Amino acid sequence: GSALPWNAGYAEIINAEKSEFNEDQAACGKLCIRRYEFGAEEDQEWLTLCAEEFLTGHYWALFDGHGGPAAAILAANTLHSCLRRQLEAVVEGIVATQPPMHLSGHCVCLSDPQFVEEKGIKTEDLVIGALESAFQECDEVIGRELEASCQVGGCTALVAVSLQGKLYVANAGDSRALLVRRDEIKPLSSEFTPETERQRIQQLAFVYPELLAGEFTRLEFPRRLKGDDLGQKVLFRDHHMNGWSYKRVEKADLKYPLIHGQGRQARLLGTLAVSRGLGDHQLRVLDTNIQLKPFLLSVPQVTVLDMDQLELGEDDVVVMATDGLWDVLSNEQVALLVRSFLPRNRDDPHRFSELAKTLIRSTQGKEDGPAGERQVSYDDVSVFVIPLHSQGEGGSGP
Amino acid sequence: GSALPWNAGYAEIINAEKSEFNEDQAACGKLCIRRYEFGAEEDQEWLTLCAEEFLTGHYWALFDGHGGPAAAILAANTLHSCLRRQLEAVVEGIVATQPPMHLSGHCVCLSDPQFVEEKGIKTEDLVIGALESAFQECDEVIGRELEASCQVGGCTALVAVSLQGKLYVANAGDSRALLVRRDEIKPLSSEFTPETERQRIQQLAFVYPELLAGEFTRLEFPRRLKGDDLGQKVLFRDHHMNGWSYKRVEKADLKYPLIHGQGRQARLLGTLAVSRGLGDHQLRVLDTNIQLKPFLLSVPQVTVLDMDQLELGEDDVVVMATDGLWDVLSNEQVALLVRSFLPRNRDDPHRFSELAKTLIRSTQGKEDGPAGERQVSYDDVSVFVIPLHSQGEGGSGP
Repeated sequence: GSALPWNAGYAEIINAEKSEFNEDQAACGKLCIRRYEFGAEEDQEWLTLCAEEFLTGHYWALFDGHGGPAAAILAANTLHSCLRRQLEAVVEGIVATQPPMHLSGHCVCLSDPQFVEEKGIKTEDLVIGALESAFQECDEVIGRELEASCQVGGCTALVAVSLQGKLYVANAGDSRALLVRRDEIKPLSSEFTPETERQRIQQLAFVYPELLAGEFTRLEFPRRLKGDDLGQKVLFRDHHMNGWSYKRVEKADLKYPLIHGQGRQARLLGTLAVSRGLGDHQLRVLDTNIQLKPFLLSVPQVTVLDMDQLELGEDDVVVMATDGLWDVLSNEQVALLVRSFLPRNRDDPHRFSELAKTLIRSTQGKEDGPAGERQVSYDDVSVFVIPLHSQGEGGSGP
Repeated sequence: GSALPWNAGYAEIINAEKSEFNEDQAACGKLCIRRYEFGAEEDQEWLTLCAEEFLTGHYWALFDGHGGPAAAILAANTLHSCLRRQLEAVVEGIVATQPPMHLSGHCVCLSDPQFVEEKGIKTEDLVIGALESAFQECDEVIGRELEASCQVGGCTALVAVSLQGKLYVANAGDSRALLVRRDEIKPLSSEFTPETERQRIQQLAFVYPELLAGEFTRLEFPRRLKGDDLGQKVLFRDHHMNGWSYKRVEKADLKYPLIHGQGRQARLLGTLAVSRGLGDHQLRVLDTNIQLKPFLLSVPQVTVLDMDQLELGEDDVVVMATDGLWDVLSNEQVALLVRSFLPRNRDDPHRFSELAKTLIRSTQGKEDGPAGERQVSYDDVSVFVIPLHSQGEGGSGP
């Protein structure tokens, strides 16, 4: 535990009934960003990557695999390098007070800083852009590697990066990061599932109907329709609708729905429970040639927590966990556990690891508490507990 | 003023320097919803629309025209009929405690109510759906009518409907509805402009590059690029990005940007300041064959205010106005004017109309106040002031 950045805690459990391997993977470490040196002469520019590190951040990542652990393992081994490369490509902009219009620093036009200012572009937007690009680059790497090694699979990705006093949380999938402070509970990510991304997915099927190969219906109904419903007017929703309306059921409406099931049971094309993530390049609907990948996004949503703006307490943490935790514990229940555990264990140097283990145990029904309300998780569960108070320790240049 | 529903106030001003007509149009009135009577026998169903009204609502609408007043006039004359028709088509569901799976009320499957329950479908979702459909139907009507009469133009649409204790606000464009209460200011709509809908618009151009006819670039840059920028790495953003990154400028990047300009000056294809609305079926980029309509949505965003859940005060109102008002007054300034005017004029039966006039006058720099901070509007301005306290008066069935 104490080798983790910032003394963060980590714990995991494998409920491996359903598969041989832990499909959850985790990664964390220092993020050492080097800088390029510029040389320019007439129309020619040279760039050299310096050896010593220029800027230091910290990195935590959780990957929840499906269809085997291959994609999650690749992501855990690759994503931080992609991110480092993407950050190194823009680091001159990141350390400026305002990103320059030109990365070279030369102004082509005197009013360039004013244009950047008017667009409200800040240095944190470059880190967000780097995270977005890194996820996409990592997705391409995974696609190539899996194909080359005749493996399959996909994974969700939840990444936290601490850099220059800010915590960036990038999420593609159904894991969650939760800020827990003495008087505040705030999710730092939102889940991407067939339900939460219904309109985007239906819209794609509307634009490219060939993606459904005549086997699925794009429309949403409260339940799967059957022969008895033919000719009746039933509740439905299409891609442009947030509300509901009625339509007369035709034969095509009896096809299997593009998105089917409620809550945790909701599936995309009857196959997948998430709508964003890495991998799945080869994934097809069982016994068909219908591909899932066109409906999946690898780009994450990024939220930024400005730690320098918060008066952080000793027990303020971010809890990152895969869906196995959040399926059985609410945000409020997690916050209760955090707030009762940490103040009681201030002297324990491993208290963040112990808290992570406590959170894991409470998904197994082994903890005291409102047992009647508590379910048991049969999924893999992985948890990081990141203490925010120690931010700034460990130094960060320049 | 006193003939308006709920004694609501209305005022408008024409800054007609730029055009012959008031391009703003307004409409309001009672919404009388009739009911269909069902008759069924074996596989046959008959529906008859009853003569007497079954459910009553109220309706306020503002349309801000561009390219002439034709579309706004058509919308003001048509949208309420479209909405009435759409509501009449689902009224049996609206008056139920929960919308039935089948509009006929017959259950094909005993667990149907449970499926509707699990999806969380409520009667207000049917009103939202009816508003969404009505906007689209009205857009089609406007397209046909303008073509038949060889006219052109488009308009934004902001609609408020009060029905069964709820206020529905549907918005397509850059008008705004603002709730002002003693201790609360809450926007009930958000604006749809090329800036706020950047990702949707860039995504469309990515999927259908032919829509740009090789004349525009999909990418966003802090300013329009020029020859000097060629080969340099400059800040840019593509459809999948919320953050910013750098790219090396190629010749194609020098084209005119799909979305250009900041704030009020932002234009779609150099032509239009809004990204949602009605009409514009014929609109093309000047001197080209490039159409605007594929980038425009007619579907509104709908927000619901549950008036029955609020302890409404005598001076609680919704202020609806076209962009001419919000360009020169902030939400806070409008709230200040409302809160200082209404309590002082409780005895005036026309106080809501007088408030609307006061708001209009303050866009003309004729009012007292922090004149230094206040700008003058040269746009048409139209304002409704809807008192919420009188809701429930005037009766509403069934």
